Amino acid sequence: MDIKTIELKKTILEDNDKDADLLREQLRQTKTFYVNVMSSPGSGKTTTLVSTIKHLQDGEAGGPISTGGPLRIGVMEADIDSDVDAHTIADETGAPSVQLHTGGMCHLDAEMSRQGLREIGYEDLDLVFLENVGNLVCPAEFDTGAHAKAVILSVPEGDDKPLKYPLMFEEADVVLVTKIDAMEAFDFAPEKFRENLAGVNPDAPVFFLSGATGEGVAEWAQWLREKVKNYLT
Amino acid sequence: MDIKTIELKKTILEDNDKDADLLREQLRQTKTFYVNVMSSPGSGKTTTLVSTIKHLQDGEAGGPISTGGPLRIGVMEADIDSDVDAHTIADETGAPSVQLHTGGMCHLDAEMSRQGLREIGYEDLDLVFLENVGNLVCPAEFDTGAHAKAVILSVPEGDDKPLKYPLMFEEADVVLVTKIDAMEAFDFAPEKFRENLAGVNPDAPVFFLSGATGEGVAEWAQWLREKVKNYLT
Repeated sequence: MDIKTIELKKTILEDNDKDADLLREQLRQTKTFYVNVMSSPGSGKTTTLVSTIKHLQDGEAGGPISTGGPLRIGVMEADIDSDVDAHTIADETGAPSVQLHTGGMCHLDAEMSRQGLREIGYEDLDLVFLENVGNLVCPAEFDTGAHAKAVILSVPEGDDKPLKYPLMFEEADVVLVTKIDAMEAFDFAPEKFRENLAGVNPDAPVFFLSGATGEGVAEWAQWLREKVKNYLT
Repeated sequence: MDIKTIELKKTILEDNDKDADLLREQLRQTKTFYVNVMSSPGSGKTTTLVSTIKHLQDGEAGGPISTGGPLRIGVMEADIDSDVDAHTIADETGAPSVQLHTGGMCHLDAEMSRQGLREIGYEDLDLVFLENVGNLVCPAEFDTGAHAKAVILSVPEGDDKPLKYPLMFEEADVVLVTKIDAMEAFDFAPEKFRENLAGVNPDAPVFFLSGATGEGVAEWAQWLREKVKNYLT
């Protein structure tokens, strides 16, 4: 599948927070739910998105979303360089994807989001994912205009990450722990992780997933489907 | 062991590159070799440093470095928050360690390095490691004044990372691939990785390590020991 790549223009808006609020309102007009997915490099963002999208695309053909019908989903893949992720998404799910190149910047802001959303044709989509640049620092500091922020942590990274990157975990609306099939090999203690997370964000729901075995994906996809349904009604 | 934590002052120098050159010269006066270690969060920087330091501390007591004697080593641990890593280093190796808090910033520059080096007493050390903030983007853009840059990539992150974070891998003087004991579980192809790396940095030596089994650590430590020896003579 042909993938469009957009070289993002740098925006230095005086008030990104205000612009992000505007973007959220703009997306509400077309009933598009926008999710910002953030994590370290290599934590399994793309793999998680592929399996999540497959779950959400399933549904009674033609049925409404409110009764479990399929969602129309798009993906924006942000990277410093390369377009491997957008190809993976498009090839494996058929979902419309655009590749965003940040030109060296380690985050996206609301206006950069808008450039990508315009390109992907958000008006005809129920749900758009942004796979943010792999980074646990800068992306946490910028509101992209998303309605929900999902933070992914992979088991090999260790259960201490909420201590070291507190803002990222504090900002999360939902936390996904991926690669749980590797838990024994990496000495990751789920209870320790929950304790570390509770120190900065006691309310975020946590889902434990494995891209390899598919474990946990249905539960997280169902949570997200409920979010979209509530947003639409 | 008591660990000193330094809240770094933000420096906005007009010419960080010039200041970094100055710092390198300053460290040459006291024959201190300075290594900037960079990677994603959770890639095994601290574990790798612990095993590397143990190798370099070994040596004929009292013998000179040129004939394999022990090196006097210090470690600066940079993090947004927390001081778990500095404690780990100090407890497991006895090496002098300081914790640097960046106050939300995702990188260190030369003057921030200098604040830490002053605190650790670099004058009496042969080798100082900086464990930079876990991040494959921003730290690549700032010269810290180090004599060598080591980039760590862990196997679970995937063999495609040089494509996605080209500047980081381009800047590397040496690349360490960690957690190689997990290679089969994560479908990491060493030849594919070498090919992706060669696209941005064909000359950097690559060492494959496992903190769990100790494999490969001696070879990398020996490479570093040679670097320090050449620097001192």
